[in-house]
Amino acid sequence: MSIYQILDFLGTFVFAISGVRLAAEKKMDIFGAIIIGFATAVGGGTIRDLLLGASPVAWIQNPVYLYLIVAAVIIGVFFDRYIFELKNMLLIFDSIGLGVFTLAGMQKAINYGIDIEYAVILGMTTATAGGIIRDILANEIPLILQKEIYAAACLAGALLYLLLDFAGLNFHYSTIITILFIVVLRTLSVKYKLTFPRLKP
Amino acid sequence: MSIYQILDFLGTFVFAISGVRLAAEKKMDIFGAIIIGFATAVGGGTIRDLLLGASPVAWIQNPVYLYLIVAAVIIGVFFDRYIFELKNMLLIFDSIGLGVFTLAGMQKAINYGIDIEYAVILGMTTATAGGIIRDILANEIPLILQKEIYAAACLAGALLYLLLDFAGLNFHYSTIITILFIVVLRTLSVKYKLTFPRLKP
Amino acid sequence: MSIYQILDFLGTFVFAISGVRLAAEKKMDIFGAIIIGFATAVGGGTIRDLLLGASPVAWIQNPVYLYLIVAAVIIGVFFDRYIFELKNMLLIFDSIGLGVFTLAGMQKAINYGIDIEYAVILGMTTATAGGIIRDILANEIPLILQKEIYAAACLAGALLYLLLDFAGLNFHYSTIITILFIVVLRTLSVKYKLTFPRLKP
Repeated sequence: MSIYQILDFLGTFVFAISGVRLAAEKKMDIFGAIIIGFATAVGGGTIRDLLLGASPVAWIQNPVYLYLIVAAVIIGVFFDRYIFELKNMLLIFDSIGLGVFTLAGMQKAINYGIDIEYAVILGMTTATAGGIIRDILANEIPLILQKEIYAAACLAGALLYLLLDFAGLNFHYSTIITILFIVVLRTLSVKYKLTFPRLKP
Repeated sequence: MSIYQILDFLGTFVFAISGVRLAAEKKMDIFGAIIIGFATAVGGGTIRDLLLGASPVAWIQNPVYLYLIVAAVIIGVFFDRYIFELKNMLLIFDSIGLGVFTLAGMQKAINYGIDIEYAVILGMTTATAGGIIRDILANEIPLILQKEIYAAACLAGALLYLLLDFAGLNFHYSTIITILFIVVLRTLSVKYKLTFPRLKP
Repeated sequence: MSIYQILDFLGTFVFAISGVRLAAEKKMDIFGAIIIGFATAVGGGTIRDLLLGASPVAWIQNPVYLYLIVAAVIIGVFFDRYIFELKNMLLIFDSIGLGVFTLAGMQKAINYGIDIEYAVILGMTTATAGGIIRDILANEIPLILQKEIYAAACLAGALLYLLLDFAGLNFHYSTIITILFIVVLRTLSVKYKLTFPRLKP
């Protein structure tokens, strides 16, 4: 199992946790938490695979994703107080998920022969669509549309990766540097409450 | 036409009715009722087929589904008072739909070579995704995430089916017993207002 | 480049603008506007292609769609006052998009060997699903489910096209007449506030 695979599992786990936390906030029951945790964790990769025509979708071929998500729900439900204290660690893990999913999505799109502009879009989609589905299920305007530098961090990361790749840097270094870059960008933007200006109606 | 096919049509019809009733509650117009009825009835099977990579989606190859849904919308709109009085019968039909869709989804997934864990998930998805889409279209938190033993009844039914199948029971018996089990579980849980505890925020 | 292709680009552009305007109304940021503009513009064609099993989805094979959408977002964000004054022109362009997307969806479905009933449904889906996704992202009940003669205009146009085609009229004439018909029907219905009666709960 590569480091890359481990990071992907970590991202899946943390995305599921973010779904469970929203489920608890909305006073759903445990089945609601499982459904919303599942959708958050696999939603982005699913949309990417559907758009690419990669069938069946990737996660359905590996039961580990299911086990990770069920574990995340159980931990999220029964150790909620403990998890709340790990807030900063969760933010970092969530940002790692963001970085890994962006790159995984972009690389898969490139492998499918998609133009680079849309490969970037598919990378961002892989990283963000799960959270969008999560918020729609909870009947909220998706967080990503209004607050925080989230999609922008994915975009900046994707562009950095292409630059490093173009400069001839080794695949593994480019990947690690890009993930670190996205993690730093996102955690700093949360810490200093950086946002884009809102549009005027 | 097999009994199985008739039950599938019945489930489609009743799911469409549930969409129309929500459309009326939200004061939509007749086109809104058709769209939401259609999405409720075919949504679950559509998501299943997309995840499996079964293309084109199943219903699009059989116009009977369209006729059933249009009939359901017309009946739902013009005989609404009458339908309201049939509340209990509708609940039973809806539960039959739940059972049939769970099994149909699980069996199709198994035929596509999907691991048993995910075949169960796809069975539940087939039975519940239509209702989730219905509630999202009506701008509500999906009912299934918060109230009633709904997804749980599908899960219990799917597990019972696997058990009966493993025990060597004939396919038809296993199917009928499982559908009956889901119908009884769901109607009892509605009658006695059984729910799972809600999570604490 | 055919006139047909130009109209398709025009429809894409105007649909993206409608997404940006809703993003501004909801005080999203510029990334929110891009995401919602993108989803509105390509959503309908995406759903159509997924249901048909046409993979990968059409827009991903042509970067022009991306450029058009980004241009629409920039114009929508920075020239919002100017755009507001063009209200009537936007309505006409939007109706052209409606007509073009309905026909494009129906014709693609027919090419894929889909029965005519569902080809009509897929035409309507192509024209309307983008707007439905836009409204769901903005946490609103989709406009199309409650107000305006919108889906009905698509349906009437689709039926007219089939009639003209059956009567032996040349493909290009049928297409142009149908688009004009949809544009007139929709703009008149907006001007005179024609709606279907709402259902009673």
